[in-house]
Amino acid sequence: MNVLLVYAHPESTSLNGSLKDFTVQRLQAAGHSVQVSDLYAMNWKPTLDADDAPQRDPSQPFHASLDSKRAYADGTQAADIAREQEKLQWADALILQFPLWWFTMPAILKGWVDRVYAYGFAYSVGEHSDSRWGERYGEGKMKGKRAMLMVTTGGWESHYSPRGINGPMDDLLFPIQHGILYYPGFEVVPPFVVYRTSRMDETRYAETSDELGTRLDELWSARPIGFRQQNAGEYEIPALTLKEDVAPDSEGFAAHIR
Amino acid sequence: MNVLLVYAHPESTSLNGSLKDFTVQRLQAAGHSVQVSDLYAMNWKPTLDADDAPQRDPSQPFHASLDSKRAYADGTQAADIAREQEKLQWADALILQFPLWWFTMPAILKGWVDRVYAYGFAYSVGEHSDSRWGERYGEGKMKGKRAMLMVTTGGWESHYSPRGINGPMDDLLFPIQHGILYYPGFEVVPPFVVYRTSRMDETRYAETSDELGTRLDELWSARPIGFRQQNAGEYEIPALTLKEDVAPDSEGFAAHIR
Repeated sequence: MNVLLVYAHPESTSLNGSLKDFTVQRLQAAGHSVQVSDLYAMNWKPTLDADDAPQRDPSQPFHASLDSKRAYADGTQAADIAREQEKLQWADALILQFPLWWFTMPAILKGWVDRVYAYGFAYSVGEHSDSRWGERYGEGKMKGKRAMLMVTTGGWESHYSPRGINGPMDDLLFPIQHGILYYPGFEVVPPFVVYRTSRMDETRYAETSDELGTRLDELWSARPIGFRQQNAGEYEIPALTLKEDVAPDSEGFAAHIR
Repeated sequence: MNVLLVYAHPESTSLNGSLKDFTVQRLQAAGHSVQVSDLYAMNWKPTLDADDAPQRDPSQPFHASLDSKRAYADGTQAADIAREQEKLQWADALILQFPLWWFTMPAILKGWVDRVYAYGFAYSVGEHSDSRWGERYGEGKMKGKRAMLMVTTGGWESHYSPRGINGPMDDLLFPIQHGILYYPGFEVVPPFVVYRTSRMDETRYAETSDELGTRLDELWSARPIGFRQQNAGEYEIPALTLKEDVAPDSEGFAAHIR
């Protein structure tokens, strides 16, 4: 299988750097092909702007989504965007690896999403009608592929527990797992999370990499998070609210998981 | 009063650009002083990296938080970071204005947070002991100041409702309102959100700017979101979980709001 690892950490000698190297070796040893988009090493441009559609009419106002639409359709996107889209199409699985900064991904990785997720590629794909609202949330160009997050944080696991002050990790990651990965069609397996990174020693690193290795071995067999498909009958269209008889007593993020 | 508006939209002739101009005029007409950090116009650098601590020892591995700590303490941070910190200290209120891209802020604004929120300035402030876990979540250098989000989205309000497919807007904004604004001490007033931006005409714009004007007039008097203070007795320390008798049947983001 083909795996794309998008990696967003500034220091190769860090814990994240070691886990990235471990991941590449483990996957390759199992016979998979791996490409790494090392965003810091690539000096990835995070800011979505008019330069991303270099052949647009500069006399017109820049429109983030419509200029993205035209550039994607015409094959005139910035070359770095097109290259990442090709890697995504090549991949059978995507891993996003990052330290949790302010409860979400670092800017450089957010800018990979903002720019690579073009109109017509990751959103506004497919028919909008009374029975379908585009190919998204379980459909889309990434359908049939898998994705997993690898996240590190200095905070303690209890701080991210159901009653922990930062909010539950699963809820903090929901906008990424559901809104960025499941949205264009990825099946998302549970995240691999390392807490309290400042207390890492050799023993704990050995345990951590062992666990990660198992998770990588199970990337193709693990049960994905049971997000509900948008167009499979559980949502009103176009309101996109859950139908009354679906999880009738539930609301919030959890209601969208079977 | 002094207001800092941090604005993250690439096109000045957009709806966001109009709402930004309206905001500045409304606040100034009421006698307030306003500074705008127009991140696109400033060509803001989003990526936190070793260049942010220009006098660090380049023979040592870069460490995002420890290098930030030293540069902040020594007054050797990159000049653009120090300038934004000065604006925050000048401000009585902060407004973050942005289009919702992939269910959170654009990369350029996330990079403002990642870089300006230095160690010793926005985090790792104050004593860590058995009774206090730093000055955060209701304490910190921004204590006594107010903050508000101004957010636009192409999606419908129902898509962001309690049972809407994207998740409730309040939950999507929780990591920003609680984890980025309340964390260093801001009192956060409810967000101003504009849905379905592609359907904006003159009549609706007049209504929208009227509502925004009222919200700006009430910035100092509106009731803040009732986030629970970390060190006021409701959390176990250092586990930072809610004590058993606090909202005993509640978990998730909502449990942290009185």
